[in-house]
Amino acid sequence: MPMPNEDDLPSGLRAAAVQCGIRARKNCLDLGLLVTDEARPAAAIYTKSLLLGAHVSVCRDHLSRSGGLVRAVLVNSGNANCSTGTAGIEDNRRVCAALAELIGCPPEQVLFLSTGVIGERLPVDRVMDALPLLTSADAQHGGHAFAQSILTTDLVPKIVRRELPGGSQVVGIAKGSGMIHPNMATMFGFLLTDAPLGNEPLKLLRQVNDRSFQRLTVDGDTSPNDTVLLWSTAADQGAPRDPQLAVVLEDVAERLARKIAVDGEGATRLVTVRVMGAPDEEAAVVVGRTIATSPLTKTAVHGRDPNWGRILAAAARSGVAFDPAQARVTIGRAEVYAKGRPQPENEGEAHRHMLEDKEILLAIDLAAGPAEADVWTCDLSADYVRINADYRT
Amino acid sequence: MPMPNEDDLPSGLRAAAVQCGIRARKNCLDLGLLVTDEARPAAAIYTKSLLLGAHVSVCRDHLSRSGGLVRAVLVNSGNANCSTGTAGIEDNRRVCAALAELIGCPPEQVLFLSTGVIGERLPVDRVMDALPLLTSADAQHGGHAFAQSILTTDLVPKIVRRELPGGSQVVGIAKGSGMIHPNMATMFGFLLTDAPLGNEPLKLLRQVNDRSFQRLTVDGDTSPNDTVLLWSTAADQGAPRDPQLAVVLEDVAERLARKIAVDGEGATRLVTVRVMGAPDEEAAVVVGRTIATSPLTKTAVHGRDPNWGRILAAAARSGVAFDPAQARVTIGRAEVYAKGRPQPENEGEAHRHMLEDKEILLAIDLAAGPAEADVWTCDLSADYVRINADYRT
Repeated sequence: MPMPNEDDLPSGLRAAAVQCGIRARKNCLDLGLLVTDEARPAAAIYTKSLLLGAHVSVCRDHLSRSGGLVRAVLVNSGNANCSTGTAGIEDNRRVCAALAELIGCPPEQVLFLSTGVIGERLPVDRVMDALPLLTSADAQHGGHAFAQSILTTDLVPKIVRRELPGGSQVVGIAKGSGMIHPNMATMFGFLLTDAPLGNEPLKLLRQVNDRSFQRLTVDGDTSPNDTVLLWSTAADQGAPRDPQLAVVLEDVAERLARKIAVDGEGATRLVTVRVMGAPDEEAAVVVGRTIATSPLTKTAVHGRDPNWGRILAAAARSGVAFDPAQARVTIGRAEVYAKGRPQPENEGEAHRHMLEDKEILLAIDLAAGPAEADVWTCDLSADYVRINADYRT
Repeated sequence: MPMPNEDDLPSGLRAAAVQCGIRARKNCLDLGLLVTDEARPAAAIYTKSLLLGAHVSVCRDHLSRSGGLVRAVLVNSGNANCSTGTAGIEDNRRVCAALAELIGCPPEQVLFLSTGVIGERLPVDRVMDALPLLTSADAQHGGHAFAQSILTTDLVPKIVRRELPGGSQVVGIAKGSGMIHPNMATMFGFLLTDAPLGNEPLKLLRQVNDRSFQRLTVDGDTSPNDTVLLWSTAADQGAPRDPQLAVVLEDVAERLARKIAVDGEGATRLVTVRVMGAPDEEAAVVVGRTIATSPLTKTAVHGRDPNWGRILAAAARSGVAFDPAQARVTIGRAEVYAKGRPQPENEGEAHRHMLEDKEILLAIDLAAGPAEADVWTCDLSADYVRINADYRT
């Protein structure tokens, strides 16, 4: 194929993007491709929603039939191919087959992901017609073009790159702005590497995902199309897995999750909710999610209000047992609640942190155990309401 | 006592209110009283939060020590007496003792509830000083004055009155605007009747509460002070319970819950989420709550957007099993999604319902069983964000 190798992707991986015409706006890339010369191992995790985009069923089927080997990942934005019935699934399969023929591989080695408006048939002909251009030298190339082509309501492309001590690359590319927009749906995360994945890539991906994308919430909603993919281009997959790989993948995925929170609809602040002193890590995440999805916590951050009461009250209704009289709430470095009482003398410092810093730290120590976890979110603004109230009408 | 009997309350119950000075605004009632001549049976249900207002502990203790008999219910607004430690509990007890002495009953027959700002000591002296006026002919009298005195961010007092076929009265009085405002906290519901409660008033109250206040959500948050009280002034408590009482109580409580949703912060629409075809009633409530707390559903209602996708997607992530391809979504009378596909020809009618009617019906039939339930909420507006972002700063 005449696609160049890109220095912004792991070795052996090439990327391209074109505008195929699903999205009407001019100069708006809406079809992206990641491709290797040989089929390489991948693993995927999907939304837990019962409502599934067509690609979820087909991806599951393809990965199962290919033994987890993937040659190409195609992504369109602008149409989620969801609530489109069996016809939507057939549409997905047709595109996979066409791309497989073009690049010379079995159809099950092609994954085709969709994100965008739900309930409308995918304009398959436009996608099919664009495939020759997409795999030619005339497409736009590189990870950045691909990252751009998968966006919907996101304002900025999201790429994170890190190197393993041995020189291998990990590149993460993501999209997502609200956790769901049933019109412009979906969070995608692509974790790409040229390091071998070892024997259990799905287990590795689950572990990474649990500590990154699973700890992100913009509005608490879940898309029918959410997909996170781990894919390695390494030729020597029999080689032992670099023990650092999991750590670096987790770091890359966490950075992507934080970028998604920063780009949350209407967001003006990235919020890290840090729960300490929890009975176990799962409990810490439960408390963190409850705080991070509370509209009152999120509006307080938007108002730069060091409102310890809303943080404590959200934790106290999370279902995790702790004694509020022993808990401590910290905003930035300022302890605003301790030993059952507010600490009003520290609220000024907390308020300054919320005013001046773009990243806000809301921490609660439950004094109920040794575990801790971070959850990321953004503030809730009147702009969020406007974006989501005015979206279709 | 020189308080008149009021015709807007069940027989044997009198109500009064004064401004004691907790709230600074002029002509703002902030201390209310319900009182009987004899101690009468009552039952109460409190917040499930681990963070508890001082009154919750003392009310539990008093009802237990008095054998469930109550002479007076005192309520202040403007200060929640929460996160005030053991001193706050002592404050509550002092006020109960003073009122008990004034009206001539044991302290445990007095309940003293608080709602308002948390984390600040209650100005007990102002409350104590106001008790003689409150129990005199110079207070404002009647259910309406009481209903007014317990409000915080609510815009309107909430009273519902119904008569049993035999002539007994049920009067409900409530307050609440967001489910929580940790500065101006709390939902209160008072269910007052002159019909006998039968042997298990708490069981009766739980049943009523589960189908009314428990099915209400404004922002998904829970206050540390939430309290629902059932109280009967009937002298002949040994008489059998009118079989209609539960039905009428449930109706009154449901009407109060809907009034709270209408008065939700920033709300412009009352939303009834109706879940049908659920495996059981509990599952229907779970699905209903998930839809009713989804910011995307609530902003769609605010934008008058007949967005079936957000309703379906919220149901699909609720944890209740159903097949989205069999489900149906109706807005008003318009079926906007059926058999796995949107019904765009009906969206115009749905849009008109959302534009023209103040009460919006969002219904989903899961086609997964015989059970159904309603949940009430309101839309999410930019005003909600402004009210809650600007509250303290």
